[in-house]
Amino acid sequence: MRQSQLFGATRREISQEEESINAILLTRGGYICRTAAGVTSFLPLGLRVIENIKNIVRAEMNELPATQELLMPVFQPKDIWEESGRWDDEGMKEVMYRVQDTNMGIGATHEENATDLFRKLVSSYKELPLCIYQIQTKFRKELRAKSGLLRGREFIMKDLYSFHLTEEGFQDYYEQAAAAYLRVFERCGVNAIRTKASGGIFSKRPSDEFQVINSVGEDTIYLNPAGDEAWNEEMVTGQDDPRLLEWGGGEVRPAQATEVGNIFPYGTRYTVPMHGEVTDETGQKVPVIMGAYGIGISRLMGVITELYGNVETGKIAWPTGIAPFKVHLIDLSPDGQGNPIYDQLKAAGVEVLFDDRDRRAGEKFADADLIGAPIRLIVSKRSLDAGGVEAVKAWNISPDEREIVAVSELENFIR
Amino acid sequence: MRQSQLFGATRREISQEEESINAILLTRGGYICRTAAGVTSFLPLGLRVIENIKNIVRAEMNELPATQELLMPVFQPKDIWEESGRWDDEGMKEVMYRVQDTNMGIGATHEENATDLFRKLVSSYKELPLCIYQIQTKFRKELRAKSGLLRGREFIMKDLYSFHLTEEGFQDYYEQAAAAYLRVFERCGVNAIRTKASGGIFSKRPSDEFQVINSVGEDTIYLNPAGDEAWNEEMVTGQDDPRLLEWGGGEVRPAQATEVGNIFPYGTRYTVPMHGEVTDETGQKVPVIMGAYGIGISRLMGVITELYGNVETGKIAWPTGIAPFKVHLIDLSPDGQGNPIYDQLKAAGVEVLFDDRDRRAGEKFADADLIGAPIRLIVSKRSLDAGGVEAVKAWNISPDEREIVAVSELENFIR
Repeated sequence: MRQSQLFGATRREISQEEESINAILLTRGGYICRTAAGVTSFLPLGLRVIENIKNIVRAEMNELPATQELLMPVFQPKDIWEESGRWDDEGMKEVMYRVQDTNMGIGATHEENATDLFRKLVSSYKELPLCIYQIQTKFRKELRAKSGLLRGREFIMKDLYSFHLTEEGFQDYYEQAAAAYLRVFERCGVNAIRTKASGGIFSKRPSDEFQVINSVGEDTIYLNPAGDEAWNEEMVTGQDDPRLLEWGGGEVRPAQATEVGNIFPYGTRYTVPMHGEVTDETGQKVPVIMGAYGIGISRLMGVITELYGNVETGKIAWPTGIAPFKVHLIDLSPDGQGNPIYDQLKAAGVEVLFDDRDRRAGEKFADADLIGAPIRLIVSKRSLDAGGVEAVKAWNISPDEREIVAVSELENFIR
Repeated sequence: MRQSQLFGATRREISQEEESINAILLTRGGYICRTAAGVTSFLPLGLRVIENIKNIVRAEMNELPATQELLMPVFQPKDIWEESGRWDDEGMKEVMYRVQDTNMGIGATHEENATDLFRKLVSSYKELPLCIYQIQTKFRKELRAKSGLLRGREFIMKDLYSFHLTEEGFQDYYEQAAAAYLRVFERCGVNAIRTKASGGIFSKRPSDEFQVINSVGEDTIYLNPAGDEAWNEEMVTGQDDPRLLEWGGGEVRPAQATEVGNIFPYGTRYTVPMHGEVTDETGQKVPVIMGAYGIGISRLMGVITELYGNVETGKIAWPTGIAPFKVHLIDLSPDGQGNPIYDQLKAAGVEVLFDDRDRRAGEKFADADLIGAPIRLIVSKRSLDAGGVEAVKAWNISPDEREIVAVSELENFIR
């Protein structure tokens, strides 16, 4: 796309209210625009990042056995939440919004809805296992809504619900899902640590969180010496808790982290009260074993920015696959010599942003730093005289790392 | 995908509450599941249809000049709606839900949000024109919520907002958008008629609706003799209204229709009170000219079903490009001989649903009628003896129209 037409220009000055790295850089870069505390618009650049994350999540979820995508409603009728006992639950009341003058909640999570679908559409053990997920905007009361995309009252989430006949079948899927989660986070460039936590308002059983260490993390976790497992602070009494000492020596260290995903074993917490049952081999009705698996898509975008963004230098070096564009073509020539190169790349199907604006070079580079495409191509009189386009990895812009690539070789270079 | 794993099996019996063709067939076919009046889950088949419609809409919108996709929030803070004067507007109060114990509305439409973004991010006439759209779940109070996807309280919509410096620039875009709308509807297999209507709660100016004639349509329109233009009943006094007689002879006929899209000229209705202004060539601040353009994505799915579905025969003959799968491969062989053919088609990138279930042929065909893939392939001992797979267009299943296609020729046949 032509940058001259892109909605959401980069901004030099932004509101003093923004404090976190992700809020500052995503606002300055034209990715997001704040509407109210915890309520955000995704501008075209930001929506592209969200879609990239969604596609990674979708690809990994679709690889899980018996797992398929659907879309449940946002509006949540009181009757099914009364069946589970969560309509009048004080913990849930602190989380779920309600629609004025109706008997509707506003989707904070979808256990009730998923179980309701299950019991309406599945009747035999032969139809199990069944795992359904959706990618949807969710809403939660958040007194401390702030930190850009880390704590929203409205946010984008992937939530998956699994239904198994046996605890063994469930456990097997649970571990497969945990492995898929680690792959998702790795593809998004973040090192997520599987962390034992409480079930909160969802379950009395412990759950597994996926926590990413970062400076504005609001959770404290205790890491094992290898740094690949942790306990959430809420589960232990401190660094000397016997559960941590079980790791058998070495340093247990606390760290600040942000939760980007969680998986919950529910057992029959929802399927007993809501009659989420199937007929088993003997013809008896049995409640099924359920689990839930969430990934905060928009929060993940915030966390990636925290890790790959730098407020002082004004740069976001997006991981490949997350960046809004793979290639940023910057025209510094006096007479628009970038145009045929842009057409050539577009025709070759390259995701390219073309800076065709009449601006000074310094301004264009500052904007390019905020857009953070993995490959930057600079067209100038000097580069053309030298035989092509100056090509550089965006996170490595020291001049001696640049190389001249012939225009005819660009598609190969990009691949 | 394997039909044995598809969530949302076809159902013989459904609730007596459902009355309309689309509610009955989409529920029986496993496309949707009703959660409450006007609140619906889209099961995997239904989500595929929605995604197909979205992609058509997106492709046509992206062809419009200076038009790009973003995502605005569902939560709508009171302050911007007070600026436009619609927070306390009685007409809007009858439409927009509010969140209990907050100062938030629940997104019914996004003029205020779009204008707020515009004024925050655009300052010069040089940045115009600018047109932004989103595809999002919307919420509207709907006392008569019913008819499956035709009248939802929660529904999926594409809404686009245009900002132009001049009325002429706006008019030109408005007509281009109208033409794009007609292309969208044509690609979705529906004949939409451009219809003059009132601006309702959006504008005092008249608007253009896109109406599709069908038996459960709740609007009455008066068609010109050629049948390609109409007035909404609300705008005229009846068949003898002078405005209709201007068509100059021939029969003016009333028809029942459903609105699938609308376009609104706003002038400065929102940009004056909300200061949606730019600096013009002379350095003066001027309010910009605005328009809005909506398409009801989920409603369109309902209308397509009304037109292409038949409750008596239990068939939905989806237009190509809308069907959840392009190819339905039905295995009637006693020993799973469809399996290698399924693998072959999948490897070739064909969107294929494979009926691998252990069911009677009649049951499989009845289900296939509800899924309505444009191409049906039947593998049986008989077809294999005859040299391949029995291929048939799903809407033409009389036995003499069937042909035997060699397995090696299938990809060519499908293309």
